Amino acid sequence: MSTLIHDETGTQRLVGYVIEVGHEDGCARCWLDVDERHLNRHNVLHGGIATMLMDSASGATGSMTVDPSGLAPFLSVSLNVQFIAAGQPGRVTAIGKITGGGRSIKFISAELRHEDGTLIATSTGVFKRVPQEKLS
Amino acid sequence: MSTLIHDETGTQRLVGYVIEVGHEDGCARCWLDVDERHLNRHNVLHGGIATMLMDSASGATGSMTVDPSGLAPFLSVSLNVQFIAAGQPGRVTAIGKITGGGRSIKFISAELRHEDGTLIATSTGVFKRVPQEKLS
Amino acid sequence: MSTLIHDETGTQRLVGYVIEVGHEDGCARCWLDVDERHLNRHNVLHGGIATMLMDSASGATGSMTVDPSGLAPFLSVSLNVQFIAAGQPGRVTAIGKITGGGRSIKFISAELRHEDGTLIATSTGVFKRVPQEKLS
Amino acid sequence: MSTLIHDETGTQRLVGYVIEVGHEDGCARCWLDVDERHLNRHNVLHGGIATMLMDSASGATGSMTVDPSGLAPFLSVSLNVQFIAAGQPGRVTAIGKITGGGRSIKFISAELRHEDGTLIATSTGVFKRVPQEKLS
Repeated sequence: MSTLIHDETGTQRLVGYVIEVGHEDGCARCWLDVDERHLNRHNVLHGGIATMLMDSASGATGSMTVDPSGLAPFLSVSLNVQFIAAGQPGRVTAIGKITGGGRSIKFISAELRHEDGTLIATSTGVFKRVPQEKLS
Repeated sequence: MSTLIHDETGTQRLVGYVIEVGHEDGCARCWLDVDERHLNRHNVLHGGIATMLMDSASGATGSMTVDPSGLAPFLSVSLNVQFIAAGQPGRVTAIGKITGGGRSIKFISAELRHEDGTLIATSTGVFKRVPQEKLS
Repeated sequence: MSTLIHDETGTQRLVGYVIEVGHEDGCARCWLDVDERHLNRHNVLHGGIATMLMDSASGATGSMTVDPSGLAPFLSVSLNVQFIAAGQPGRVTAIGKITGGGRSIKFISAELRHEDGTLIATSTGVFKRVPQEKLS
Repeated sequence: MSTLIHDETGTQRLVGYVIEVGHEDGCARCWLDVDERHLNRHNVLHGGIATMLMDSASGATGSMTVDPSGLAPFLSVSLNVQFIAAGQPGRVTAIGKITGGGRSIKFISAELRHEDGTLIATSTGVFKRVPQEKLS
């Protein structure tokens, strides 16, 4: 059973995306209902917002390797994004996937698709687990 | 003399960044006064917003190679981001720089710094000029 | 039916990899029998050689979108590589895959695996078809 | 005073590049006299060899943060390469530069230039220090 994370951070409240964690496949989702507030000067989804959704899905996918709540903190170290197609208004969903890594560093890729199936963007990233001693 | 671009797109109005174009060095700037709305779950600047600022500065820098208004449309093809240090609240500024390319494809890098001088993130990207025939 | 490309270029003769094109799935392969000449100071496959194999498989995959011989020239514009695991001696094979793009620019990803199934590295890249007029 | 590293690994002996370490600026160099053995099907420097030189310069630059001999082992975690211009025969030199990072992870960029000054390629990468306990 999956759990939704809403309104957790300032950015999430501002932009309005939702994170879904807890899926058995270990892949977190991050979706957004794209409207006029999320568009760029070409009137399609802003690349920065597309990146935000893939980064968030990837980080939560990393968290799920530690505990199913998707809240264990992971930092983005580097992220490479390919902007494949224009993102039209409507729901878009990023889904993360672990491709490798060890205990502290994970390689996580993500795909962002429109609800009509269009592949909008892909990303590959290096993520780092935040050690517990740094959190207290 | 530089020109400020405010509130041009939905995303820009939502997030509140400002683009500066027209500098003689050919490098567009994009700055944001980071507050609580731009933070992630670690209470520092969200990586997606950092990326947005560098992407915007890079795209406007590409535009300035065509005309100084910084409005000639350039698309992001791919973008690689390195998250160097946490971005604290305060003004952060991305500055773009052409590293190479031909008539239609440009290689553009960017640096994002806090007003205290900290290097927060760097990016390198491939950008593509939108042909005129696609705009009419 | 697939075709093997051997010894086509100086680099290929030096390093010894083989390119396979013509598969019905549209994905070119590039394989190498890794021996002592391909190792780095950690005594595993050198990252530069791993990159070479994925770059070659990706470029040939791009070529196959134009004609099945895999010889139509495509240039690498940018390439992002994730080094997932150490590559041990033995046969390693890169396989390319188109993820998107238009007539002149293609997004092509690749995976490099050891014959024992280990995923050694992944790449995502932007490739550009060389226009015919530039070739004469 | 700088030191040259020749013929250290199988790949280095095969390809023939030289690593220079020990410079006061903390930036390792890696150079190669490009000849017919290093060319691709466009008769210019193969992208995989360009990547190898930048990867090697970056790794040695990371090593120099630990000790000036440039031999402390650093692993490439991810590498992003931009192929800016064709590399012609002649000497080409990659130079690495630390852009950030902490004790175990370093962000290292590199530039590859021809002896005539042409910028051939740039890279940004994430590198990881190999812990001492893993070496014994």
